[in-house]
Amino acid sequence: MVRIAIDAMGGDYAPKTIVEGALWAAQEYNVALELVGREDELNTVLDEIRSSGFILSDCGTKGRKIKIKIDVDKIDYTITHACEVIGMGEAVGQSIRKKKDSSIVASVKAVADGRCEAVVSAGSTGAAMAASLFGLGRIHGVTRPAIAVTIPTMKKPVVLIDGGANSESTPEMLAQFASMGVAYAKLNLDIENPKVGILSIGEEEGKGNTLVKDTYPILKEMQENGKFEFVGNVEGKELFVNKADVVVADGFAGNVALKVTEGTASLLLKMIEIEFKSGFVGCLIGLMAKPFLRRILNRINWESFGGMLLLGVRGISVIAHGRSSAFAMKNAVRAAVNAVNHDINSEIAQNI
Amino acid sequence: MVRIAIDAMGGDYAPKTIVEGALWAAQEYNVALELVGREDELNTVLDEIRSSGFILSDCGTKGRKIKIKIDVDKIDYTITHACEVIGMGEAVGQSIRKKKDSSIVASVKAVADGRCEAVVSAGSTGAAMAASLFGLGRIHGVTRPAIAVTIPTMKKPVVLIDGGANSESTPEMLAQFASMGVAYAKLNLDIENPKVGILSIGEEEGKGNTLVKDTYPILKEMQENGKFEFVGNVEGKELFVNKADVVVADGFAGNVALKVTEGTASLLLKMIEIEFKSGFVGCLIGLMAKPFLRRILNRINWESFGGMLLLGVRGISVIAHGRSSAFAMKNAVRAAVNAVNHDINSEIAQNI
Repeated sequence: MVRIAIDAMGGDYAPKTIVEGALWAAQEYNVALELVGREDELNTVLDEIRSSGFILSDCGTKGRKIKIKIDVDKIDYTITHACEVIGMGEAVGQSIRKKKDSSIVASVKAVADGRCEAVVSAGSTGAAMAASLFGLGRIHGVTRPAIAVTIPTMKKPVVLIDGGANSESTPEMLAQFASMGVAYAKLNLDIENPKVGILSIGEEEGKGNTLVKDTYPILKEMQENGKFEFVGNVEGKELFVNKADVVVADGFAGNVALKVTEGTASLLLKMIEIEFKSGFVGCLIGLMAKPFLRRILNRINWESFGGMLLLGVRGISVIAHGRSSAFAMKNAVRAAVNAVNHDINSEIAQNI
Repeated sequence: MVRIAIDAMGGDYAPKTIVEGALWAAQEYNVALELVGREDELNTVLDEIRSSGFILSDCGTKGRKIKIKIDVDKIDYTITHACEVIGMGEAVGQSIRKKKDSSIVASVKAVADGRCEAVVSAGSTGAAMAASLFGLGRIHGVTRPAIAVTIPTMKKPVVLIDGGANSESTPEMLAQFASMGVAYAKLNLDIENPKVGILSIGEEEGKGNTLVKDTYPILKEMQENGKFEFVGNVEGKELFVNKADVVVADGFAGNVALKVTEGTASLLLKMIEIEFKSGFVGCLIGLMAKPFLRRILNRINWESFGGMLLLGVRGISVIAHGRSSAFAMKNAVRAAVNAVNHDINSEIAQNI
């Protein structure tokens, strides 16, 4: 049985929502858990769920909560006490080194020590990255780990890599991101022969900054060596049209792209909400339109994808959104289980 | 009377739509035109409009065309013959030098020669930039011109600079972009005391790539010298929440942000369209919801802003979208007229 280490103290709604999501996942995907955090707080949450017999969670849409039956005693879990927490604003490098007894460092250690196959954290992204990198080390041959993010589109999802692990990159790093992204797309998203593109400005070869121009020939060569199909430059607006299945970017541009997607979507949805609150007729039509808009929300909801994978470290590390609900957390665990079951790291080690 | 040079051959629907939009603007904003392009083609379009007495154009929303009365003979225009056109795919540097008789080069020359105050082109962005830079030269002290783009938000618009003129930037360039962006926000968008931010990953000082980290203290110093208020890092998702009025970015990241905004918005709108076409009830509700969604479309429509300004060149150069409709072209001319009337270049020269 796969065992997942859960940073139960990380996230805006920790530990309650994190534990709820983890239990839900354990029950649904039949995995074991190592819950890491302040023992008393975790036990309080567990006792509550045990006595009520269920949790309440939305299912990817705000406002509508459903009841999920949880039989705590049927779930294979252990608690590992960790008394410290690394907050969102803390300097990452320092806290990782100083707070050895923090929930994220202890969760990573559970993987490093071989008790667990994967770690899931909804805490500070920087802390989760640093703890995973220092605690697990890199896969042999990998220069720098990178964050793989799944982006929804009309058809199949697209993998953006690097979503922000490295603020500075080299062409060689981007080439490795391509390899890792392909492994992820193939094994975790079931995309056969993933096509690779590079995030740039302008579609033609020769367009972009120096990094893109220097990476282009390397990716072209990888195509010639049969590693993957390379489709060339992918513009920001082409991210969502399945021109490429894996889009390679330096962590700065990748993170900008990711956050702008988030920002644009919430601006639009906010505008729609306001329009449908303007006057009686608007409210009425808005009410009728709601189920349709909700279906869209469900399709583009990051909570359904659950988390980003830090690829290139020796072990599986899933970084969930800080605002993760139980539903998001459940899906983050699913992403971890998927990665473990498909042995994505062997594929990466082979490709690098 | 302000006179605007129009690259009548540039754009996907040139020359017809370009001429229509230019005439519409001339009538609405009381400006004179120098239409630059193949004389016979332009005369054909003009004759058509003259004889019908109107043009048909959407007003920022697809599908719904309105009739605009145009009295061609009351408009102050001249035609300058230019027989060549620079296509979208052509290598920019070469074409600018070789095709001296292209419509974009000749339009810029109309400004350089002092016959016109501004040039508007919906042709190849690269060609328009290069022609403007070589034809007009830089404002004294400006290292590199940059593209200022207006982005709609819930409240007031935000200026993103550089939207893609420079694929490689230095901290000193970004500092100049800040100055130019502030001038633009103040004069063209009527924003008092515009706040400046820098596009980055992570909100705190010290987050971002080397370029951002090196630019940060310069912008801070500019704040201390009373140049503008500096709000620090702006994340991609914060672009739309009016944290800053002017967001500075290198042209690569800026262009990625811009295009991702475009891509996300069209993905979402496409999804909404499809949802409301699923079945009879969906169609019915979709029909009722249409006016509400159209109002949103109008608010976020790039066509309403008309074009991007290439700031830092000696003269006003507006680069309109390749897909510009007559409505978009009219607004691009308005942006040019605004910049001329507010003498934005004097303000820039003073600030640099």
